[in-house]
Amino acid sequence: MKKIANIHTDFPEKFGIPRQSGVVAELKGKIVFEPEFRNPDMIRGLEDFSHLWIIWQFSENLDTDGNAKWSPTVRPPRLGGNTRIGVFATRSPFRPNPIGLSVVTIDRIETDTPEGPVIHVKGADMVDNTPIYDIKPYIPYADSIPDAKGGFTDSMEYKTLKVEWECESNIPENTYDSLNKLLSNDPRPHYQNDPDRIYGMAYAGYNVKFKVIDDEVIVVEIKKQERS
Amino acid sequence: MKKIANIHTDFPEKFGIPRQSGVVAELKGKIVFEPEFRNPDMIRGLEDFSHLWIIWQFSENLDTDGNAKWSPTVRPPRLGGNTRIGVFATRSPFRPNPIGLSVVTIDRIETDTPEGPVIHVKGADMVDNTPIYDIKPYIPYADSIPDAKGGFTDSMEYKTLKVEWECESNIPENTYDSLNKLLSNDPRPHYQNDPDRIYGMAYAGYNVKFKVIDDEVIVVEIKKQERS
Repeated sequence: MKKIANIHTDFPEKFGIPRQSGVVAELKGKIVFEPEFRNPDMIRGLEDFSHLWIIWQFSENLDTDGNAKWSPTVRPPRLGGNTRIGVFATRSPFRPNPIGLSVVTIDRIETDTPEGPVIHVKGADMVDNTPIYDIKPYIPYADSIPDAKGGFTDSMEYKTLKVEWECESNIPENTYDSLNKLLSNDPRPHYQNDPDRIYGMAYAGYNVKFKVIDDEVIVVEIKKQERS
Repeated sequence: MKKIANIHTDFPEKFGIPRQSGVVAELKGKIVFEPEFRNPDMIRGLEDFSHLWIIWQFSENLDTDGNAKWSPTVRPPRLGGNTRIGVFATRSPFRPNPIGLSVVTIDRIETDTPEGPVIHVKGADMVDNTPIYDIKPYIPYADSIPDAKGGFTDSMEYKTLKVEWECESNIPENTYDSLNKLLSNDPRPHYQNDPDRIYGMAYAGYNVKFKVIDDEVIVVEIKKQERS
């Protein structure tokens, strides 16, 4: 299994990434192929599809030998973090083979850049520079099952939070909008409920600090990241 | 990347397998885990989902060194076999990493068999004994996009054929029914149109011979396979 591409996103770290692709539709990603696959012929016809499957590596969840960290059961955040579910009954990143599956929107395709063909996507739920094993077009007649039963993912209302800014929000408007959506989706581990705790999150070149009181996210600080 | 399970199906060979999962909904499959993963805890909660993603190996398309056979463009059968499309704009089994992605219906789960927990599924499009890398529950809120644009898979009417039997059809009724569905979906490579040609297909313990004249499949012989 070899890496065919990387995806570049606005998340330098895992914290804050939505739990599934598409939850925050605005999130931008850019797929850049490895030199061996920089051939526009290989994506010919992709422009006629609206969505793309990405099969990728949970590269953040490997041990120092490159093996997946996992356990037979996990506690999904959607169930409050208290109920144990089998790893194969969840989309947990901690699984025997560290393979992620995400569907994204195809925003725009450039066939000829200095990095070869580049696919711009939206809705990606991956950390910056995630390795990709395969991309496949989304085929609605086979892949879309609107009346499928979603198990525990059906069982809970998906409650979003209000977002208040206590600090200046002098950042570009689209960054502000997507950051608000990310925060309203409650990036905390769900078993945490400590109104005094300050969480830090890195997004789109900014470090954001916030706390959560009841159903409200309060942004207390935002700072441009130092260039590394 | 390690094998976590195999799927057992009624297809000892590739020929005749539908081009996508779910096309022939009746097709039975049985997922049997590797000894290391025979733990019912690992699938706890899966019974509340109706559908399952299977991430599997295109084990039929490897060279003698175990590497994937592929080329930058492929000629999808749906386009008559004449138009070249980029490999990443298709679900072709001939791709840089030989990974298949299929959604199946969960029919029934046995948690305690001599082979450990077993998942019975329907709609599988895999050859018997295909190695599986991962299974994940289908989550409709993220995975189902009914209005997605399906590129070239949208562009052609999906024409089914009539099936006539010229020989005895003294086989079990459910085998007869699913075989008729398989044949009506036209298992030929689409660029072939030779009314004299006899095709052979192995399914559910039978060898089936048929020809195709215009929009009609004619079954000319069916025989029980010799046990090997």
